[in-house]
Amino acid sequence: MSARNIYLTNKPLSEARELWNAALGRHRFFDYAPTESINVDNSLGRLTAEAVFAGNSSPSYNAAAMDGIAVRFADLASANESNPVILSPEHYQAVNTGNALPPDFDAVVMIEDVNLLSDDRVELISPATPWQHVRTIGEDIVATELILPENHRIRPIDQGAMLATGITEVTVKRSPRILVIPTGTELVQPGQSAEPGQIIEFNSRILAGYLNQWGGEARRSLPVTDEPVLLEEAILAAVKDNDMVVLNAGASAGTKDFTSSVLSKIGEVIVHGIAIKPGKPVILAIVDDVPVIGLPGYPVSALLTMRLFVEEMISGFLGTDMVPREYTAATMSRPVHSSMGVDQMVRVTLGHVGANLMCTPSGKGAGAVMSLVRADGLLTIPAGSEGVGAGEKVQVELLREKSEIEATLVVIGSHDNTIDLLANQLHKHKPRVRISSAHVGSMGGIMAIRRGEAHLAGSHLLDEESGEYNVPFLRRLLPQTPLKLVNLCYREQGFMVPQGNPKKIATFADIAKNQLSFINRQRGAGTRLLTDKILKEQGIDRADINGYAHEEYTHMSIAAAVASGSVDTGMGIRAAALALGLDFVPVAEERYDLIIPEEFYSDFKVLALLDLIRTQSGFHQKILELGGYNLRDCGKILYEQ
Amino acid sequence: MSARNIYLTNKPLSEARELWNAALGRHRFFDYAPTESINVDNSLGRLTAEAVFAGNSSPSYNAAAMDGIAVRFADLASANESNPVILSPEHYQAVNTGNALPPDFDAVVMIEDVNLLSDDRVELISPATPWQHVRTIGEDIVATELILPENHRIRPIDQGAMLATGITEVTVKRSPRILVIPTGTELVQPGQSAEPGQIIEFNSRILAGYLNQWGGEARRSLPVTDEPVLLEEAILAAVKDNDMVVLNAGASAGTKDFTSSVLSKIGEVIVHGIAIKPGKPVILAIVDDVPVIGLPGYPVSALLTMRLFVEEMISGFLGTDMVPREYTAATMSRPVHSSMGVDQMVRVTLGHVGANLMCTPSGKGAGAVMSLVRADGLLTIPAGSEGVGAGEKVQVELLREKSEIEATLVVIGSHDNTIDLLANQLHKHKPRVRISSAHVGSMGGIMAIRRGEAHLAGSHLLDEESGEYNVPFLRRLLPQTPLKLVNLCYREQGFMVPQGNPKKIATFADIAKNQLSFINRQRGAGTRLLTDKILKEQGIDRADINGYAHEEYTHMSIAAAVASGSVDTGMGIRAAALALGLDFVPVAEERYDLIIPEEFYSDFKVLALLDLIRTQSGFHQKILELGGYNLRDCGKILYEQ
Repeated sequence: MSARNIYLTNKPLSEARELWNAALGRHRFFDYAPTESINVDNSLGRLTAEAVFAGNSSPSYNAAAMDGIAVRFADLASANESNPVILSPEHYQAVNTGNALPPDFDAVVMIEDVNLLSDDRVELISPATPWQHVRTIGEDIVATELILPENHRIRPIDQGAMLATGITEVTVKRSPRILVIPTGTELVQPGQSAEPGQIIEFNSRILAGYLNQWGGEARRSLPVTDEPVLLEEAILAAVKDNDMVVLNAGASAGTKDFTSSVLSKIGEVIVHGIAIKPGKPVILAIVDDVPVIGLPGYPVSALLTMRLFVEEMISGFLGTDMVPREYTAATMSRPVHSSMGVDQMVRVTLGHVGANLMCTPSGKGAGAVMSLVRADGLLTIPAGSEGVGAGEKVQVELLREKSEIEATLVVIGSHDNTIDLLANQLHKHKPRVRISSAHVGSMGGIMAIRRGEAHLAGSHLLDEESGEYNVPFLRRLLPQTPLKLVNLCYREQGFMVPQGNPKKIATFADIAKNQLSFINRQRGAGTRLLTDKILKEQGIDRADINGYAHEEYTHMSIAAAVASGSVDTGMGIRAAALALGLDFVPVAEERYDLIIPEEFYSDFKVLALLDLIRTQSGFHQKILELGGYNLRDCGKILYEQ
Repeated sequence: MSARNIYLTNKPLSEARELWNAALGRHRFFDYAPTESINVDNSLGRLTAEAVFAGNSSPSYNAAAMDGIAVRFADLASANESNPVILSPEHYQAVNTGNALPPDFDAVVMIEDVNLLSDDRVELISPATPWQHVRTIGEDIVATELILPENHRIRPIDQGAMLATGITEVTVKRSPRILVIPTGTELVQPGQSAEPGQIIEFNSRILAGYLNQWGGEARRSLPVTDEPVLLEEAILAAVKDNDMVVLNAGASAGTKDFTSSVLSKIGEVIVHGIAIKPGKPVILAIVDDVPVIGLPGYPVSALLTMRLFVEEMISGFLGTDMVPREYTAATMSRPVHSSMGVDQMVRVTLGHVGANLMCTPSGKGAGAVMSLVRADGLLTIPAGSEGVGAGEKVQVELLREKSEIEATLVVIGSHDNTIDLLANQLHKHKPRVRISSAHVGSMGGIMAIRRGEAHLAGSHLLDEESGEYNVPFLRRLLPQTPLKLVNLCYREQGFMVPQGNPKKIATFADIAKNQLSFINRQRGAGTRLLTDKILKEQGIDRADINGYAHEEYTHMSIAAAVASGSVDTGMGIRAAALALGLDFVPVAEERYDLIIPEEFYSDFKVLALLDLIRTQSGFHQKILELGGYNLRDCGKILYEQ
């Protein structure tokens, strides 16, 4: 093993921020404030760099504000019903709205109030006030008046106001140019096939996308392979043409993570290593007065770290305030532990379940892009805290519109592929309704209902004694909760095996006898209970199953492990096996139900879901196409308490 | 006068909506739902047209999750501090984060826990669990699992998730193509000089800008002149290539408004004329199955009408729900009258003044683009109501972020050009703080303070008896309000006259004697009081001033009237005269103060303003450059009660 970069510190976030802002100040990053003059037609969404004053007045002439006739108000002074005034054609002139008021006229009478006589004369029965129905010069805005202040984000109506007063060019702030440089010999471009050890280069797209949303002008470079001299060249070239450079990755302490030493050589490393999680190995450096930010490699770490530092830098560069982050109060549905001394950012889902907005961690892996796709919010546990307890009130930063969260149906419990289908079909038919689902096993679903975290839970818990599904568990674990148990489907459980079943697996006895490698579901999963029941019935010792302790959380994870060849087999549903092209040895049919507390049974989101599963034959067809499902009781209430 | 289009009806809004939606339904406008397949890199902000399922698993191989060494966990079973396990190089392999786990290895030990001995063997003092620090295949997402449901707006993180699982193309909904056709012989393009009667064609930019923001793909055509045959040709061509056509204008009943008859000839007019204000003469028609919307000509009417109908049509076309409009409760600061039977949309400004969010109409003219630039919200007074009273609670649709409204300093009162400068400088130095100003005269400002509408008011009211500014009025009109009176400036008032003062105006006596035309300020304006005081002192009868009853609301409006030649002179401040290149005959120096209730004196926005006027010499310089100002007391507290 070669030398590793060990100069990774663990600076508190506040200290890192201070050092970084001081360095940016020294290098006058926030003072540069470049501007550019652009056509008003192209200025939408840009920030004004100086005040915009009206070029001409609007209207620029005295204009008829109505369709009618222009008159001299003095001519009508005596007009009334019994004593109409009659004007000959030289004393009035027809005008349409927007026409210039002819010279020497000083009022307009609406067409509705004009009686046209046969000889082109008009009869009027009311007097007029001076300048009535006339938009006088500058009525909207007078030349030289302020239209837009400096630092204003231009909207379509603002473009209209500028153009209306004759302004066609506007001086706006130039966005900071940011180059995102992906680094790593392991990177391949989207569309290329990735061998084991290779990674599709998608991070730079995520990063550039958010940089643009925050007001930057981000471009992506091609990946730089892991050679210090190439990285050095790339950075030196980038700082020439850009206001900021973002590197991803190489900030860690692996053998190939030489970013820090390269940056020390060609510039000044201000901070390397911050006490935050995820994201610790971030590098903040300055090269030729240009900030260079080295982000960790994992997408979640990279994005969350970038948000911590770069969003603010873009606002500062533009001389505007950051869009304030939106927070909401929520209640923790379960505890989250955190290390003292580390600011931890936790991705969470939020659900309006009953009176409370419940906050549940949505996944932990720094590589888990899907945990961010699914996240509704971000909870920061500050360095001075050891974590938050269940039931504790927290402030959560929103990552979605609040209205979207309010329309989210929270489904927690056993995983079944139909839940994905449900989520999709529901969102299609009721675009406002969204399903947020967490796969924590049947028992986890019942616990979620008990803690008030979920609107409903999917469950297939088989009671060993009675052979009955779910009901005995509800009676025991949720005795106080009025609820309905609605069937979703029956489904086949069995062994997932590679195509052709090469190890000839038919029973658990085969697995034990031949010491085949098995992968298990977590405790509390219905499939785990089924496995345990069968092992008990067949008199097989758990210790004889190689891999009994190796746990995964979903049918699809089991299927993926078998498909990769990591293990010989695992238990799961037929649909998961078919999805990944595996063979399937059926072991049992089981019942999969939805547990719906009475409290939520009339919720519009639940009703939408029930309507979907009860009436949409297209949806049934799609489930049947997955394979291994029977819908004879789909939507039926099987039990109430 | 030629024939006018008189088929304008006055349909209630709800009825118009019903007829229109039924017609759209008959023509299957919402069923078309075109889609297109695009590169994921270009998909930001688009709506998925079908569910997106993972192409490959991510990770697609078992990957080291840490920098360290790959091991077989069974080898370390006995390791502890007193009994370390030593592995020879064939029993471990160095790995960096992201590397593929070498075949036959099943765990990773972090580099921090590895003691490298001199002969390339490693010493370990803890056991490992199976698959520890390994990201197993599909840990993030398993091939075929749902990534995004149909009808999902794609974010950068979603692009990352798709690319991560090998998806490079995504099927999205195609936005409706909308052509905006400006009509009118009077239109000239921005940048061209507009003669009286000509109008700069800016409406189509406003309309297209919002259509794009609502999810449309809007283009603008060149203006079509007022010839029925040309309009017919333009519409027939447009409906061939577009999903929707927006005409602006020609929907009214003027002599040149033949849009309705053209549409009747080539298609079906569903509605012409709706009982809404502004916006009555809207036309809703269908030509060759394509909706054609004829909007009124005034920018405010056009935009508000388009919002009523077209935003919803775009959402419907895309098969998604409209972004819900955001409303806030507010208190009316003054009454607004409305006609029974007409849905009236009122542009309002909103101000967090004390405990209440106060709602104040921001201007009425249908042509007043600036009233929409300034508006914070939109109040709809339904057809069944005759209006709202002062103090009444109303629901207002927000046109700005709530946080922006909370950071708005509401200044109501006398108009002075320095208020524009203040607004700009404040926004520049404190980007979060915005000034919303309404020019209603000094007395209007005092009334606004009394009604709790404003944080502060600008005032220059001269007490005839004592010759003192402002204080006697405060004692009389705001006796119960603790407040501070802070000087902003002294300024010269006088006659604004054309260059060279051709009518040789020096005094009001000249104006009366020569029957020159005068333009006055409104009752309650400080300048009006000054005018009245001088007339009284000089013994001149108001009736002898030609135009005494012709009122405008700001110095700049007076200046604009003089500059246009509509009138010979008017009273106002030197800065306004200079701004429009007029000559100025000084009459008096007057004091312009800010009235600040004690309640708001420590408000951060007021403090920011006071800080600006007291300490920013650059700001003083800019005021002095306007001309006619003296800042000897600027920022001083002149009176407290």
